[in-house]
Amino acid sequence: MTKPMRIALLMTGNELMSGVTVDSNSAMIARRLEPLNLRVEQRVTIGDDPDRLTAELLRLSAVSDLILVNGGLGPTIDDLTAQCVARACAVELVLNEQADQHVRDWCQARGFAANEANLKQAWLPDGCELVHNPVGSAVGFRVSLNNCQVVCTPGVPGELRAMLDQQILPWLAHQYPQSDRVTIKRLQLFGIGESSIQQMVQEAMPDWPAEIELGFRAGAPSLELKVSCFSDQYESMRSDCEHAIRRLFADYIFAEGDVNLQQSMVELLRSRNKKIATAESCTGGLIASMLTEIPGSSAVFEGGFVTYSNRMKQQMLGVSEESLTQHGAVSEQVVLEMAAGALRRSGADYAVAVSGVAGPDGGSDAKPVGTVWIAWGALDTLQAREFYMPRARTLFQVMVAATALDLVRREILGIQTQPRYFRERAPR
Amino acid sequence: MTKPMRIALLMTGNELMSGVTVDSNSAMIARRLEPLNLRVEQRVTIGDDPDRLTAELLRLSAVSDLILVNGGLGPTIDDLTAQCVARACAVELVLNEQADQHVRDWCQARGFAANEANLKQAWLPDGCELVHNPVGSAVGFRVSLNNCQVVCTPGVPGELRAMLDQQILPWLAHQYPQSDRVTIKRLQLFGIGESSIQQMVQEAMPDWPAEIELGFRAGAPSLELKVSCFSDQYESMRSDCEHAIRRLFADYIFAEGDVNLQQSMVELLRSRNKKIATAESCTGGLIASMLTEIPGSSAVFEGGFVTYSNRMKQQMLGVSEESLTQHGAVSEQVVLEMAAGALRRSGADYAVAVSGVAGPDGGSDAKPVGTVWIAWGALDTLQAREFYMPRARTLFQVMVAATALDLVRREILGIQTQPRYFRERAPR
Repeated sequence: MTKPMRIALLMTGNELMSGVTVDSNSAMIARRLEPLNLRVEQRVTIGDDPDRLTAELLRLSAVSDLILVNGGLGPTIDDLTAQCVARACAVELVLNEQADQHVRDWCQARGFAANEANLKQAWLPDGCELVHNPVGSAVGFRVSLNNCQVVCTPGVPGELRAMLDQQILPWLAHQYPQSDRVTIKRLQLFGIGESSIQQMVQEAMPDWPAEIELGFRAGAPSLELKVSCFSDQYESMRSDCEHAIRRLFADYIFAEGDVNLQQSMVELLRSRNKKIATAESCTGGLIASMLTEIPGSSAVFEGGFVTYSNRMKQQMLGVSEESLTQHGAVSEQVVLEMAAGALRRSGADYAVAVSGVAGPDGGSDAKPVGTVWIAWGALDTLQAREFYMPRARTLFQVMVAATALDLVRREILGIQTQPRYFRERAPR
Repeated sequence: MTKPMRIALLMTGNELMSGVTVDSNSAMIARRLEPLNLRVEQRVTIGDDPDRLTAELLRLSAVSDLILVNGGLGPTIDDLTAQCVARACAVELVLNEQADQHVRDWCQARGFAANEANLKQAWLPDGCELVHNPVGSAVGFRVSLNNCQVVCTPGVPGELRAMLDQQILPWLAHQYPQSDRVTIKRLQLFGIGESSIQQMVQEAMPDWPAEIELGFRAGAPSLELKVSCFSDQYESMRSDCEHAIRRLFADYIFAEGDVNLQQSMVELLRSRNKKIATAESCTGGLIASMLTEIPGSSAVFEGGFVTYSNRMKQQMLGVSEESLTQHGAVSEQVVLEMAAGALRRSGADYAVAVSGVAGPDGGSDAKPVGTVWIAWGALDTLQAREFYMPRARTLFQVMVAATALDLVRREILGIQTQPRYFRERAPR
């Protein structure tokens, strides 16, 4: 195996330091490097401070083979990257003819003449290699510093993405060919926590091989398991591990790859040519919104009833006044009637209905904040279950929506078991 | 003025390096430090690598007064922060009684007994100060390293937030009192872009004082303007600037402080004792979901009709078959009938209805992807307007939902003008 390449990211910009902007670029870079078997070792983020930026370039160049610099290539006076790279390399900034032409062409194509600020972007460290920007006006460039390659890219995500895909990754693949092929398999799970998974893996597979990486990503609400190896020679070992994991967590795995709960639900319904309708109280339209954020959901989603008030539950879904009075809006009887109403009024094959106490107000001793009833199924298979998830309001809503979708998934797939989902017991 | 405090963030976790997780915690930390006049100087992000983590702790401690470490305090074997801090400080990990009790209590309150993995979280560097975690099982802690304070927090955003607000910020304010008081006023705008604002400010206030900072935060969909000064002596100057900004952008400002569009809408409706209903096609429940994510929204939100199919538009809202056939689902006639139907069937005071082509499929020459009709108002003031926002599906949905809420806001407040909102013209 070749010695792993030491890669550092240097992200720059005041907006990254002040909390104005969340840095999504470094995740984009890391995910794109992964299939090349390249990993980022460290990431340093600093403001628009030329001394610090220059110092970090020098420091990182001594411990890295490659520095990817992102940000600071724009037209404003805050954009200092070219200047700092030149300082670190002890060269001058010179007008790069090719970059100059690029900026002029770019402006002209947009119907205006390049001004001084635009043209500032063509002044680059003497001797650098240009990195073409197919999308924006700021060109990237590449220099060598202390035997370390420094590649500078603009901070606009769309420009960075295009330059990575079209220029930088092909160059990296050519420049640093990896002898080993990396294999990464991602499995998406719902209804089980990270610590339970870890314990079950340890018990079922005490000799988990060191060559295979088992990675976790605990998101809200789902969880990603990643089974990877970093050389061809371990692929059959990796595949065995993956299959063991699949067997162990079979019913919890709702998808492979970068697929979320609502995508897998839309896909599942589409593959079976079935439609779903939603009847939501405490989630207030979130389930419908999750489903319809997926392209093509119109083929499987008939419509949704957001019945926030009791009056709307009666009018839109035909919930009986008696059930509301006798059992309250958060009750088995009412969610079953909500689901039945949604099925009858929409003609959908499946429905899911939720009613709960999202809080922070509205709880009682019998039904504290976090109590929720979920009903799901087809007209002849409707069932309901109570949950207790005392969480902050929006997290509660997300967890309820995800649980509702998972219950429908298990129903459609004929999975008999239901997980506990959440450890908390309802107070009664 | 006291010498500014040198603050470093040290973010740790493989998921931050591999691109699995976008780091939103550091933005949260920076925003919360701002009112204390504290700024982060540098941020280093590294994976779960104990040698590197220890080395960075030592390196940063030599150039910082405070290191905020985030991540690596969970129950799994990847969680190495306590161990690395102990190594950097040359002390042992010891069982902290208080932390042990916290973990046990936390598990017990959730109905299960703490296992070995849970209890690992109670092993902390000898001599550290605990930082209570009011939300989760992982306690934080604080040590001194080379005269630098090191504060370690868990990576779960909700836990970090609670610990910052309840423990760490009060401690910082007490420990490092700033001689100057910082004043930050945030104004929330919708319907105008950053470059237009910048141009209008330059024209209206050419002598903007250097002592006052005008900050932008372009979020999707709203925009934050921040008018700040960093010493008491400039407060009246700052206040003048703020009032000039308020006059200049009066109708665009929907809130002050950390308030989003849906919060301000719920507040506005509550203050007028009015109720709203939604009728959504292309946004698929997003507007309802945004409103109901706000605590207390049940007082102002009656219910929502997610009428994704034409059949549901007819059945749930009474849209006429004739309108659907003659004008199509994305038309002035249909959104007006949707809004009227929502008003009649819910009894709400206001309604908003949307129907558009979210894409990526379903567009035509006459109604390309990005076309949307919005209707809004009370029964006797209903009006509709067409927009064209050719954006990726989910961004389109967010922009439509926000525009719909802003149109209702202007209606309720009696603002006669409507902004262009988006530059793109519909193709006809």
